[in-house]
Amino acid sequence: MRVSELFTRTSKTVPADEVAKNAQLLIRAGYVYKVMAGVYAYTPLGLRVLENIKQIVREEMNLIGGQELVMTSLQRPDTWEVTNRWSDDTVDVWFKTALQDGTELGLAWSHEEAIMEMMKQFVKSYKDLPTSVYQFQTKLRNELRAKSGIMRGREFVMKDMYSLHATQEDMDEYYDKVIQAYKRIYDRLGVGDETFVTFASGGAFTKFSHEFQTICDAGEDVLYINSDKTIAVNEEVLEDATKELNVKKSELSPVKTAEVGNIFKFGTEKSDSMGIRYTDAEGKQQPIYLASYGVGVTRMMGVIVEKYADDAGIVWPEQVAPFSVYLVGIGDTAREAEELYDKLQSEGVSVLYDDRDERPGTKFADADLLGMPHRVVVSPKLVASKEYEYKARAQSAVSALTQEALFATLKPAQGE
Amino acid sequence: MRVSELFTRTSKTVPADEVAKNAQLLIRAGYVYKVMAGVYAYTPLGLRVLENIKQIVREEMNLIGGQELVMTSLQRPDTWEVTNRWSDDTVDVWFKTALQDGTELGLAWSHEEAIMEMMKQFVKSYKDLPTSVYQFQTKLRNELRAKSGIMRGREFVMKDMYSLHATQEDMDEYYDKVIQAYKRIYDRLGVGDETFVTFASGGAFTKFSHEFQTICDAGEDVLYINSDKTIAVNEEVLEDATKELNVKKSELSPVKTAEVGNIFKFGTEKSDSMGIRYTDAEGKQQPIYLASYGVGVTRMMGVIVEKYADDAGIVWPEQVAPFSVYLVGIGDTAREAEELYDKLQSEGVSVLYDDRDERPGTKFADADLLGMPHRVVVSPKLVASKEYEYKARAQSAVSALTQEALFATLKPAQGE
Repeated sequence: MRVSELFTRTSKTVPADEVAKNAQLLIRAGYVYKVMAGVYAYTPLGLRVLENIKQIVREEMNLIGGQELVMTSLQRPDTWEVTNRWSDDTVDVWFKTALQDGTELGLAWSHEEAIMEMMKQFVKSYKDLPTSVYQFQTKLRNELRAKSGIMRGREFVMKDMYSLHATQEDMDEYYDKVIQAYKRIYDRLGVGDETFVTFASGGAFTKFSHEFQTICDAGEDVLYINSDKTIAVNEEVLEDATKELNVKKSELSPVKTAEVGNIFKFGTEKSDSMGIRYTDAEGKQQPIYLASYGVGVTRMMGVIVEKYADDAGIVWPEQVAPFSVYLVGIGDTAREAEELYDKLQSEGVSVLYDDRDERPGTKFADADLLGMPHRVVVSPKLVASKEYEYKARAQSAVSALTQEALFATLKPAQGE
Repeated sequence: MRVSELFTRTSKTVPADEVAKNAQLLIRAGYVYKVMAGVYAYTPLGLRVLENIKQIVREEMNLIGGQELVMTSLQRPDTWEVTNRWSDDTVDVWFKTALQDGTELGLAWSHEEAIMEMMKQFVKSYKDLPTSVYQFQTKLRNELRAKSGIMRGREFVMKDMYSLHATQEDMDEYYDKVIQAYKRIYDRLGVGDETFVTFASGGAFTKFSHEFQTICDAGEDVLYINSDKTIAVNEEVLEDATKELNVKKSELSPVKTAEVGNIFKFGTEKSDSMGIRYTDAEGKQQPIYLASYGVGVTRMMGVIVEKYADDAGIVWPEQVAPFSVYLVGIGDTAREAEELYDKLQSEGVSVLYDDRDERPGTKFADADLLGMPHRVVVSPKLVASKEYEYKARAQSAVSALTQEALFATLKPAQGE
């Protein structure tokens, strides 16, 4: 794609109403557009990042037998009343609305009850279990404050998966499979080394839920981690955990982290309160075990920005970058730059080509702000020797590469 | 995919609360799940159909320079108040909600104002025009009645595109390009022969908007069409149109049609009321011309069901079918059926394999209800001669084909 084709433009002005670095950078670079606090539109550039993240998550969910579907945003009260999650007194993030006849409706902030209500129709026998479904869905949550940019939005995209099982053992086994799938997701997203699975802190389901926390200065949580990163303990459960793991508190250091995944074993709780049963091999009525598994897709995008950005702008990991290469032509090299643009694309490398009539300094600043992993410059002084200037966004070294060496450096982009 | 892996199941019972054929069949076949009137979830089977439709629309929008983005569902009142489209008195399909501090918000039923509000930030000069953006978005519309299944939902997926231009001429030219792109879309969706572009009936923008209407008994509209289908006129503008086209009313016959696309020239209306201007080449402030272009993606799915279904069930056109082939093994042919299943998939043919331990009659009935374009049966009597029983869903003839002839018949599936 050509920069001249983008309707977005970069800005040097830090938005006055944003305190979160992710929102400041994403707005300045033109990845998101702010509609109101916690509510952001995703521009063509931003959507490409989201789709890359979604595709990684999708592939891993499919690998463990998850089936993709789409549930609805509009929710009926009765589905949630039976589990006591309809009232604003018990769930304080509902956006509520109403049909023209006055019937109150909710806008989904999660889907456990909706999934169980639907599955009541399909899961009758032990032969129908286990089953695992997931969706990428725009969730609405009426957060009191929304100051973390796209890390905690009022409108955000989430991957939520729900697995239903005949027995505790089967749920436990699948739950462990999901943990492994989540680890692969964070590896592929480029944050695996600094992401830890921990017992969730607080809440009614502490013993039955886990969080995935990644090291991030902008995170709201604190983990206590040992030197080789094999132990990571949530602050709130530090006392119990150190005893259980037989480590000294002095061996653990606190780091700020952001939650990037959250998984729960609801067990038979929903099945019991909603009165949903399956028939076992002996013909007896049995409750269904439910677990749910969330990854905030837009949140993940924000965390990645927070983790890797430097003073000059965003630094995308290869796997999620909207384009692999930021191509800049300077001086009188339009023909050579166009040729390289075509050649890179024909080789399967995704390129954002800065074809604007701007000063080199402006183009380089935008290259840094936008954060593509590789910057390639076609410059008059290297045209003669048929070389290109190459710089990795995350490194400071600049080198002159032959076309062969350049293509060897730029692996075909993912997700294209 | 294997039928045994689907959590959905088919049903012979027509849902008592559905009068629309599309909803009856889609629910019975397990493509959609009804949450409430006009609000449907899309199961893994249904989502595959939606994604196929979306991909066709996406490719055609990209071809004419459309850039995909995602706007937000939550809407601020001020964006819509300036154009007098916030009040429930002027727009009667808003779902409204509120932040915890009481601030009223709307849930988007369209995005003209939201797009213009965003573009105000990016379009400053004539050099920034034209620009064209589109999205696939879940729209919410508070319809008083919702009895048409997924043809008119309260929650539905729409492709909406918006183009911004410096001049009337530029808008007119692009508008015509979109008409051509839409024609290609309907061709590719398999409904091109029976889809007509007509002047919109009624409303304030009659002269500046067009509808795409496809012949459909379940449609809400009536077109007057001549024998070779070169003239199609909306009932409401019949008098004027016959005069203008110089045809006699007696040469035209009425047919019921359903709207499958709707395009509008807003001209400078939004730009004027929202106070948005660009600077032309002479440095003068000028209004921006806006046109918008909608295709109801979920509605399209419903219309396709209505158009082609027969007494036995759904009949998907090849291009939108969730799977190309419904593969049935009967008798003691599991090994041969598995082999063919693998071979079809390795050749790029998408297959739903009915691997259940059910009677042949049950499998055949589900093949018809689910509506894949091709049915292939592996039966004991043909195994010896290495032949397969083949039947096109839309035809009644059954033939015995060699593997070579079978693969020649089944073109590689689209959208896989």
